[in-house]
Amino acid sequence: MARPQTDIEAGRQELLDIAEELVRKRGGVDLSMTELAAAAGMSPANLYRFFENKEALLEAAAGRWFAPKIAIMEEVIAAELPSREKMYQFFARRFVLMRDQFREDPDMFKSYLELGDQHFEVVKGYVDLGDHYLSEIVVQAMDEGYLPDLSIDDAVSLINQMVQVYCNPEALLYLDHKLSEEKLGLIVDTIFIGLGRDFEEQPGSREPHIKIVT
Amino acid sequence: MARPQTDIEAGRQELLDIAEELVRKRGGVDLSMTELAAAAGMSPANLYRFFENKEALLEAAAGRWFAPKIAIMEEVIAAELPSREKMYQFFARRFVLMRDQFREDPDMFKSYLELGDQHFEVVKGYVDLGDHYLSEIVVQAMDEGYLPDLSIDDAVSLINQMVQVYCNPEALLYLDHKLSEEKLGLIVDTIFIGLGRDFEEQPGSREPHIKIVT
Repeated sequence: MARPQTDIEAGRQELLDIAEELVRKRGGVDLSMTELAAAAGMSPANLYRFFENKEALLEAAAGRWFAPKIAIMEEVIAAELPSREKMYQFFARRFVLMRDQFREDPDMFKSYLELGDQHFEVVKGYVDLGDHYLSEIVVQAMDEGYLPDLSIDDAVSLINQMVQVYCNPEALLYLDHKLSEEKLGLIVDTIFIGLGRDFEEQPGSREPHIKIVT
Repeated sequence: MARPQTDIEAGRQELLDIAEELVRKRGGVDLSMTELAAAAGMSPANLYRFFENKEALLEAAAGRWFAPKIAIMEEVIAAELPSREKMYQFFARRFVLMRDQFREDPDMFKSYLELGDQHFEVVKGYVDLGDHYLSEIVVQAMDEGYLPDLSIDDAVSLINQMVQVYCNPEALLYLDHKLSEEKLGLIVDTIFIGLGRDFEEQPGSREPHIKIVT
């Protein structure tokens, strides 16, 4: 990482460290500028030199939280990989990162989730970016002959629904021990083999299966 | 419905009506026996004749909430249907019921979710029953040649993960407009076509797709 370019930027990073520590200690609900200023030993007026309002502070905190996830997405999108492998890594690498964060400090993780629930608008940009990159993988998959007979939007929506438990951080709170990279891999395989294909017309099975006559 | 067989049973049903009305009005968190007794115009001692403790009351309320969903599962399991249709109805009919309840009275729906979060042990029986019935459908599907090379437990777990957004009532709160019976049908088709099949060995596509040479 380059050194912060300005004193303001260095101050912002320090204040974000302090905000993170506050969230760790007391949870994320209703964190106020006054409280952060007190924890940083500065006047509220001084704090506003670094963040013009609470929204700007939250956006910067969200930016820091999402930065490594965005880096993963960009790296995967830029990689020379077949679409199936790309989609797997797109979901699996972020899932593993999220699970590590959760297991390292579950309370902190929950505090961030609460913050995200309270300020969904800052989360939404990240979700939309994920959809944008996923649609690029979908287009590549379609070029390679997968996901036939679906619009890009429908494919993105259906895939998001099928892998939801690996994207939604809330799912870790009650499903952690049932989630695994191996299962995610099987789900991505299932998507590539089956999604968009016509069930009735499918020869599919390696073993012949009973044909239902109506 | 048959008439309640005893006065105690009739009293229980009336008290459950009153409890439901209370939850509707003030939310489900920390509902107490004292509060219910007051709303019913009886002494707490009298209330305990009908429900021996709060746990018994919650179990009865959960029983009433889950009864129509259990009836759907039992009806679907008993039906003479191919496994794909059975699995679709198993999830779709309960999803539609849940969505109707949510749209009719979103606040009431949220109150019940809070109650369920606070008393997960009463919800767990219902979840386990769902897994039990799903495993029966999985066995039938395997007999019909689907879901090859998977254990029953793994198949149940993977299917639950892929249709999670149609089972988890929380998902309605933020995904309602993105969920539909049609998409659920496409997901079930995808499961039947693809789950458990080997991605590498799959001829699959109706259109030939680019083979990746490594």
